[in-house]
Amino acid sequence: ALAEIHPADIAQIISGLSPEERKGFFGKLDLEMAAETLHELEPEVQADLISDMDKEQAADVIERMPPDEAADVIADLPLEKAQEILGLIEKEEAQDIHELLGHEEDTAGGLMTNEYLAYPPGITLAETLERFRKEAEEIEAVYYMYVVEEEKLLGVIGLRDLILEDPSKSLGEVMHTKLITIRADANQEQVAELISKYNLLALPVVDDENCLLGIVTVDDVVDLLLPPASRRRRRRM
Amino acid sequence: ALAEIHPADIAQIISGLSPEERKGFFGKLDLEMAAETLHELEPEVQADLISDMDKEQAADVIERMPPDEAADVIADLPLEKAQEILGLIEKEEAQDIHELLGHEEDTAGGLMTNEYLAYPPGITLAETLERFRKEAEEIEAVYYMYVVEEEKLLGVIGLRDLILEDPSKSLGEVMHTKLITIRADANQEQVAELISKYNLLALPVVDDENCLLGIVTVDDVVDLLLPPASRRRRRRM
Repeated sequence: ALAEIHPADIAQIISGLSPEERKGFFGKLDLEMAAETLHELEPEVQADLISDMDKEQAADVIERMPPDEAADVIADLPLEKAQEILGLIEKEEAQDIHELLGHEEDTAGGLMTNEYLAYPPGITLAETLERFRKEAEEIEAVYYMYVVEEEKLLGVIGLRDLILEDPSKSLGEVMHTKLITIRADANQEQVAELISKYNLLALPVVDDENCLLGIVTVDDVVDLLLPPASRRRRRRM
Repeated sequence: ALAEIHPADIAQIISGLSPEERKGFFGKLDLEMAAETLHELEPEVQADLISDMDKEQAADVIERMPPDEAADVIADLPLEKAQEILGLIEKEEAQDIHELLGHEEDTAGGLMTNEYLAYPPGITLAETLERFRKEAEEIEAVYYMYVVEEEKLLGVIGLRDLILEDPSKSLGEVMHTKLITIRADANQEQVAELISKYNLLALPVVDDENCLLGIVTVDDVVDLLLPPASRRRRRRM
């Protein structure tokens, strides 16, 4: 069945179809698979497919995408359509997407997602694990957890350390504090440079007050450097 | 102190020094830091620095590198020097490096490391966690654990699932079995394509019998696409 095929392969199949065939094929995907596939397609194909769906259905699909991918799709729709769909999306998710739409596409802010795990420094690793078990399921990329107090970024801890360190220690005791960060208005070449130089899986984006705004993940940088085949025609890099 | 600076920054400083200054500066680093810094330098600088050290000291540094990085350094040394140093390295580590040296540099085999975590399908997640706690400390990149029986690759599990799933379940029950793999003689462009297309953190390299030979990690692909500043001059891509 279609569920057995990887979304990246489905996107490649869709890219080879005529606009009419695409519509029929995409309509047969369940919502999860449609959401995962959409990100892999060229922006103009995304916009066509979404425009052809009814608004409620389009909102259902976009709601299931990570907010950074959803924002990329929304940004390519005609303004009216975009606003209609945003109005139908669950409030918190719509808010996340709206925030991301405020950043220029080719900046760190334009690449980042605002879906990440952040915890206060005072809780123990045992408590962190418990919260992680509740919250990690829904999040796309959980390579690191961020330690944040009054919105300010204090440190970071990886999943390996979360497993290896003594669970009675506090996050503040075990977190790494030598952080590589980037500002939201930095360009995407600077993002790629930092992720490459320091071998990072994710790079935190902060404002002038060192408040955490989001993270850029390494797969987005790989896509910048080597866009997927189905999207290659439109990309500039 | 020097230990406060990231190895990638130390490499950048070293790249800006004269050969004489380099030697003095590199000699002041402790063995761990020297090992981490070496990988970030241009191949010719690596070879110069290693050639200037006495053999025992060079072997101590190389022993501390992940085997794929150690193999890259060894491959650029004069044959005699390379063999002397390999002879002084702990047997198991030297064996790992020797195996990697058998692959062409610009293939999946040339990019892979043979340092990864692999477990049989019959053990529980609780047992896996226990083994992980013993073995993960020394390994550079533990994004996934591989499930292997009689050397054959059966499945993969990420750290997130290891934490989230019921610890009484077996690895065989929770592992992902739809695997993306590559052959050791595939070229590095094919490696980059697969890692990009399927958003992987690591790609398993297998032989014709589907036996696991090693893994290529996403940071190596980023380095291929965007070599670090200190190595940029020499690289072909």
